[in-house]
Amino acid sequence: MAKILRINTRTREYRFEELGQYAGLGGRALTSRVVATEVPASCHPLSAANKLVIAGGILAGSTAANSGRSSVGAKSPLTGGIKESNVGGQFAHKLPRLGLLAVILEDKPEAGAGFCNILVKQDSVEFQDCADIVGMDNYAAHELVKAKFGEKVVTAMIGPAGEQCLSAATIQFSDPEGRPSRSAGRGGMGAVMGSKKVKAVILDPDAKGAVAMADPEAFKVARKRWVDILMGHPVTSQGLPTYGTAILVNIINEAGALPTKNFRTGRFDGASKISGETMTETIKARKGQYKHGCHTGCVIQCSQVYNDKNGDYLTTGFEYETIWGFGANLLVDDLDDIAMMDRICDEKGMDTIELANTMAMAMEAGVVQWGDGKGVIELLKKVGSSDPLGRILGNGTAFTAQAFGVDRVPVVKKQALPAYDPRVVKGVGVTYSTTPMGADHTAGYAVCQNVLKVGGDVPSHGKAGQVEVSKNLQIATAAVDSLGLCLFVAFAVLDTADALSVVADMVTAATGKATSVDDIVNMGVNCLKDELAFNKAAGFTDKDDQLPDFFKNEPLPPHNLTWDFTAEEMQAAKV
Amino acid sequence: MAKILRINTRTREYRFEELGQYAGLGGRALTSRVVATEVPASCHPLSAANKLVIAGGILAGSTAANSGRSSVGAKSPLTGGIKESNVGGQFAHKLPRLGLLAVILEDKPEAGAGFCNILVKQDSVEFQDCADIVGMDNYAAHELVKAKFGEKVVTAMIGPAGEQCLSAATIQFSDPEGRPSRSAGRGGMGAVMGSKKVKAVILDPDAKGAVAMADPEAFKVARKRWVDILMGHPVTSQGLPTYGTAILVNIINEAGALPTKNFRTGRFDGASKISGETMTETIKARKGQYKHGCHTGCVIQCSQVYNDKNGDYLTTGFEYETIWGFGANLLVDDLDDIAMMDRICDEKGMDTIELANTMAMAMEAGVVQWGDGKGVIELLKKVGSSDPLGRILGNGTAFTAQAFGVDRVPVVKKQALPAYDPRVVKGVGVTYSTTPMGADHTAGYAVCQNVLKVGGDVPSHGKAGQVEVSKNLQIATAAVDSLGLCLFVAFAVLDTADALSVVADMVTAATGKATSVDDIVNMGVNCLKDELAFNKAAGFTDKDDQLPDFFKNEPLPPHNLTWDFTAEEMQAAKV
Repeated sequence: MAKILRINTRTREYRFEELGQYAGLGGRALTSRVVATEVPASCHPLSAANKLVIAGGILAGSTAANSGRSSVGAKSPLTGGIKESNVGGQFAHKLPRLGLLAVILEDKPEAGAGFCNILVKQDSVEFQDCADIVGMDNYAAHELVKAKFGEKVVTAMIGPAGEQCLSAATIQFSDPEGRPSRSAGRGGMGAVMGSKKVKAVILDPDAKGAVAMADPEAFKVARKRWVDILMGHPVTSQGLPTYGTAILVNIINEAGALPTKNFRTGRFDGASKISGETMTETIKARKGQYKHGCHTGCVIQCSQVYNDKNGDYLTTGFEYETIWGFGANLLVDDLDDIAMMDRICDEKGMDTIELANTMAMAMEAGVVQWGDGKGVIELLKKVGSSDPLGRILGNGTAFTAQAFGVDRVPVVKKQALPAYDPRVVKGVGVTYSTTPMGADHTAGYAVCQNVLKVGGDVPSHGKAGQVEVSKNLQIATAAVDSLGLCLFVAFAVLDTADALSVVADMVTAATGKATSVDDIVNMGVNCLKDELAFNKAAGFTDKDDQLPDFFKNEPLPPHNLTWDFTAEEMQAAKV
Repeated sequence: MAKILRINTRTREYRFEELGQYAGLGGRALTSRVVATEVPASCHPLSAANKLVIAGGILAGSTAANSGRSSVGAKSPLTGGIKESNVGGQFAHKLPRLGLLAVILEDKPEAGAGFCNILVKQDSVEFQDCADIVGMDNYAAHELVKAKFGEKVVTAMIGPAGEQCLSAATIQFSDPEGRPSRSAGRGGMGAVMGSKKVKAVILDPDAKGAVAMADPEAFKVARKRWVDILMGHPVTSQGLPTYGTAILVNIINEAGALPTKNFRTGRFDGASKISGETMTETIKARKGQYKHGCHTGCVIQCSQVYNDKNGDYLTTGFEYETIWGFGANLLVDDLDDIAMMDRICDEKGMDTIELANTMAMAMEAGVVQWGDGKGVIELLKKVGSSDPLGRILGNGTAFTAQAFGVDRVPVVKKQALPAYDPRVVKGVGVTYSTTPMGADHTAGYAVCQNVLKVGGDVPSHGKAGQVEVSKNLQIATAAVDSLGLCLFVAFAVLDTADALSVVADMVTAATGKATSVDDIVNMGVNCLKDELAFNKAAGFTDKDDQLPDFFKNEPLPPHNLTWDFTAEEMQAAKV
């Protein structure tokens, strides 16, 4: 049975614990339960009382397709509420091979202490000096780590932004090629890790523990059907592998929901220059890779390797939300500039959605001009440096807006809005408003039913059905995140009759505990209840479940819709 | 009957309105009612929907001693809640002579608009170019205004901090000598004024309207007894006039409640060097003025004129809280340095309590060293400049802590704590926690009963009686602020049997409306109800009525007490 590794970052004591009260949980259900149970809701997120939990899902380490996602949980320095930040990379694939389901970092060193790396081995933990990589950008730091531990080393590392405890700091997880390219992006988890003076958690590359299924034969049957389901749906078998998530640029622009110039219009003149189609053509011409998986076992392959004009590697995991945020929302239409911004965010360890909106604030304030991609690149490089401007920007959208007196601030619970205008895609607006995470499209991706017409058809412009669809998706997502599955399986699951029972069969076969579809749904419900309870204890109320007033007051061209839900009307979206 | 002047800062339309629904209100009761009634609780504080209200009290313009305080109200950019910031100076004395009880600034100009001055005349308003003073420090700007309008001009002006819409920005009100020395300090009212692109509100010096009392003879009798009451109490007739509020340095230090080194101990080794006694000796030696009134009609004279080593004017209104914050809390024991910090705050237009705590955050972060007074002076000068560090510092304590990853942050509702450690002076801790204003000693000054033994004796170290005393003081203070009286009258009122009925008699005689002591108490209760209702609508809950966890976890030497109230236990302090 996999264990929890609990590490005190001040005393450097550690324990390998049985799951105990946490038995049966995994992924987000586990991180949120630990945070809700063990972290005082009133604590300062950077204080010793906060805990950082990194967990694989219930199916982690199995051969189930797309089951290698990691959950990172803590009280968020960005929102002040609970946070689960979901990330790909190799961590959750490797962790079970060390006999572990989760790692918990507790307490914090005394003021003035330096950073360390934590090497996790089969039955022990080593605190290692990391002076050679402190202050270094992530790719270069990772090269040094690889030189020491080998090409296959698996890491979760913070960059200069995390070292400075900035609220938009990520934890970067290494991908199958050993690049620090996968971001536990949202909510400042990197700042929490930075406050505990941990530069990187490194999983012993020599660990080779096997991960046993309770019923290997039954698991084999179920996982085969699972692959067939994923490979049988056009979104997961064709759209995403060919164009990545950037396939959405043209789709959302066509829907009039592509937020442009800080959410002033829903269409961007330069959309075709930054579309998924253009990206894939560019990748092909430069001999990059347009199909790529972020973790072992991924069959969807929505990631890619994007090379620069010279054919040299520039970035990977180049998402629609990043392209939207640094592109349309800033009036930047140069895909190479945007790719460079994505790379810098990975280098410094910063959330691209948060930083893209932050740059919009900087443009509102005149710090950089609308459309000035090169100017944005220079600003991004300041984060993590000694320049105070970097400390402003690295603390995100609401913070930068306050610094410069900007009053048009697209945040919910202080977290910046993603790439779908809620006035037009109202179901996702309900999710932005009501999820315990702060504005987060992944928490209940109603774009499916509103725009893509996957898993149902709820017209995006009206209010009817939006609360229900958001609620159901929020529950399903919490379950998916708890299993450790990639959210993108949802496209296929929503459209396939037996998909959920196949998932239940995989869980049953993997764990040996009979698990029904209802059990899986309840896992999602209970996870959300934990999160909502924490936020309530931290002082959140229904009043925090609102979009900023400007979405109510300013109609969005071309459809000229406004946001017309009250906070009260949306409460039913919460479990 | 005095009117309300309502000015649209975008269209530049204005109206002189009858009081209407606001009849019978004044000062804080008026500003809070207007904000609670007219400002959407969900609005961004710097958006067009917010309103800035400047009002004299019910006794404003009368000859009642110490009745010249002004109230400034808005939704606060610092706390996100309602704010009344109380200030001396000549504004409330002059306003009634223009036939006005209050001025309301509404809406905001389009992006890119420049600043203007607003000249208020007897029956008209002029929007005047102010290019000559934009960006200028307050004293120099005020010299230019005086050169144009005469030495007796009365102003409410923002400095560079307010122009940049920083959350710790004040509005500086001119004192009887025409110096911009009186601060509507707390809660960022200067940022709201700055967002509306108003540099100064100037009251026509030529206005000479008389202020009539409804029953002049009865008023004369009551006001004479009122002066006798104030002059009959040792605090208001001897302590405050001789040593200013800085008389508290030694008293609070002796009580072990003088927060030192960011609230780490309750005693400061250098206290005697920065005490009121030392200040008065210094003032005398340099031929300054140790008795001084902040507004016409003040008989307490707790202000002073503090000269530098050369005998030249340095600052005035040099308060205990300022001396504590820049002194003991930063381990600075040079009174001249602290006086310079006070002056710079007046020059840039910054709240001294907020900025002093901000500097403690900068010291925690190593931006400047503990005890380095000269370093603090240099940092303060950056606020309002083009240096991004100035934008961090000027947004206050919680903001600066976030910028630098500091987790020991003494704020309630994001407003920094004043000069009395709540672990030792528990009554004021209840006030910090529960007042709708955020941490504010003036909102319910239980230091009286806890330490000074004025108006009762509630032992400061225990929990017994603290909630009750805070509640009663919060009600009384709201009433005092609504009448336009100086809070310091409370010392005498609390110890004098007939004082409240004399105040009621003055109100009856001034307004012609029979007013009882109960009516005055109800005025305070209703004002607080308005404020709490606004905050609830803005999303505040009982959970926001808490001190930061470190006050609960760290005992304060020398008494080694912790904060031991729960938020629930304190709810009874709210009306």
